[in-house]
Amino acid sequence: MAGAGTEKRRRIRKSARVRQSDVAKAAGVHTSTVSLALRAKTRHLISHEQVEHIERVARHLGYRPDAVAVSMRTGKSRLLGMLLHDISDPVYPPIVRGVESAGREHGYMLMLGNTGYDAAAEAELLETFASRRVDGIILATTRLHDPIVETCLASGLPAVSVFRRPADGSIPSVLNNCRGGMAQMVAAVQDMGHRKLAYISAPHDISSGKDRYDGVMDALRPGSSCSVEMLDELTADAGYRATRNVLARHATPPDAIICVNDLVATGAYRALDHAGLRCPQDVSVTGYNGLPFGDLLNPPLSTVGIQLFEMGVAAGEALIRMIEGEAVAVESVWLEPKLIIRESLARLLIATEN
Amino acid sequence: MAGAGTEKRRRIRKSARVRQSDVAKAAGVHTSTVSLALRAKTRHLISHEQVEHIERVARHLGYRPDAVAVSMRTGKSRLLGMLLHDISDPVYPPIVRGVESAGREHGYMLMLGNTGYDAAAEAELLETFASRRVDGIILATTRLHDPIVETCLASGLPAVSVFRRPADGSIPSVLNNCRGGMAQMVAAVQDMGHRKLAYISAPHDISSGKDRYDGVMDALRPGSSCSVEMLDELTADAGYRATRNVLARHATPPDAIICVNDLVATGAYRALDHAGLRCPQDVSVTGYNGLPFGDLLNPPLSTVGIQLFEMGVAAGEALIRMIEGEAVAVESVWLEPKLIIRESLARLLIATEN
Repeated sequence: MAGAGTEKRRRIRKSARVRQSDVAKAAGVHTSTVSLALRAKTRHLISHEQVEHIERVARHLGYRPDAVAVSMRTGKSRLLGMLLHDISDPVYPPIVRGVESAGREHGYMLMLGNTGYDAAAEAELLETFASRRVDGIILATTRLHDPIVETCLASGLPAVSVFRRPADGSIPSVLNNCRGGMAQMVAAVQDMGHRKLAYISAPHDISSGKDRYDGVMDALRPGSSCSVEMLDELTADAGYRATRNVLARHATPPDAIICVNDLVATGAYRALDHAGLRCPQDVSVTGYNGLPFGDLLNPPLSTVGIQLFEMGVAAGEALIRMIEGEAVAVESVWLEPKLIIRESLARLLIATEN
Repeated sequence: MAGAGTEKRRRIRKSARVRQSDVAKAAGVHTSTVSLALRAKTRHLISHEQVEHIERVARHLGYRPDAVAVSMRTGKSRLLGMLLHDISDPVYPPIVRGVESAGREHGYMLMLGNTGYDAAAEAELLETFASRRVDGIILATTRLHDPIVETCLASGLPAVSVFRRPADGSIPSVLNNCRGGMAQMVAAVQDMGHRKLAYISAPHDISSGKDRYDGVMDALRPGSSCSVEMLDELTADAGYRATRNVLARHATPPDAIICVNDLVATGAYRALDHAGLRCPQDVSVTGYNGLPFGDLLNPPLSTVGIQLFEMGVAAGEALIRMIEGEAVAVESVWLEPKLIIRESLARLLIATEN
């Protein structure tokens, strides 16, 4: 281990110091020859033997290209930027891992920008990314009508939306089928006998908010009712406040509270508990996104599982193809979600079943 | 909104195009004068009126310095690198937000590298960071004897360790008082009547593993016993496997399973459940780190709360002070943890209490 450490140290020290001129001196050639030999696009201009010799010397000295200098020369930074609201929201890390994984496969690094749900911070981060010459950008913050998307299009910065999409489909996006997934959940809730529903909705200016809301309405059957409570942000605390409102606005609690996501559902759990109501005996609760630990919550949470990591990989790969000049269809790729029914959704014994 | 979008778009488009030579032409001065006027260190060389005039023209044209070109000239990238194992582990996002927040305050962006617990990937990421000329690095992966730390020291790359520390204290670190926090927990467990303990430990080649283990042993009283099960990695699955081993190795289950962290404790919950044992009626379980949703688990998890975001901020600020040439004491900053007792730790009615 000590040996490996020493070896590693030597290589890094060299990497900070060895230049093409050092390689040229050691190889006994002119610096411009080294430059030609070490670039894929130009090495055919000199003899095969000379390329091999120079590569051997470069390897021996521990030469590595300076990414900043390469970026100056090629205009490519091999950096991707990613805008998201808050990495502490557990829905994002698996997506980030997916994008990073696709990037690493192709030699791209990922720079993250947490907007903290602040539009001004978002615009500023985009400018920062641009000034750092990112080759492309992953948007996990996309609204249906989003000036950020317009900016990327206008400036020619390749962009892919993940988890959400712009209304006009002007950039590629990778999503889960929110509308279908939520419709499945609301059908299951009604199959269990629930008729009086409350839906805690994300704002409709984001596609996941609009699509999941549409899914609820698609599935609502004659004889069922659904009140809609609109969130101001997608956090557990906002879910708590919204659930308090649902309980305050009605004489009796709903049979089931359908939450737009799992984080919001944990807020609903807390609000029910504080109101002295039991889940699922008094009120059933459902979530969406299939976050880890949903099965360990009290009670285990019914949810809709989605392929977060895979969405990140697909978005990262699409972006890299765009950056590298391949034709990428400007379309939405939909991954199919999967219903997960657990104890938070109880079968209701209603009068009509007698 | 449409207006704001257009305005934003125009500014970004300009930022990709306007050069100092454009500003010079519009201002009617030589490019070198623009260069002098727009740099804090050189603007005193020309008249105040000229500086104001050039700044006004630059602002009007939407000129902004190209971060890559600035980096080439100054040798500073205003980029920080951060090595961590897996952003999907919920302990990391709040630390990352803290580092990012300190960075943004001072104009630094953060580049993340997930090692996936792979030492080769870790070394490669460090080389990538170096080739991209990061100004400094935050290590959340530090082992007690760590070649990565040696490499940073040898190459002169400023580095700060967060959450963990190297044994020789050769770089500054920001930590929580693991040893004291775990000792408090194990004292509380014994106060509740538990005598036969099992400890699921992180490997002792990382400081948090060693310190928390030492805390357990500090607090262990005469008449108590503690078997130690060593994890191969810090995941819920590893916690599950370790708990299965604890149950398999002993004729009767322990009174309480002390877990090195919350993620591992969720694995213990699953293993107890699969073995038909109830928590806390049959076996108590405790965690560490105070992750979100611990209060919503079934049963709510006893844990030790630590200041993750604040640790990130403190580490980021220390690193930036180092980068900017201030004297930073090479010391460990310890934040104090806080015991959180919930239902997963039950009072044991033992014979001696009769």
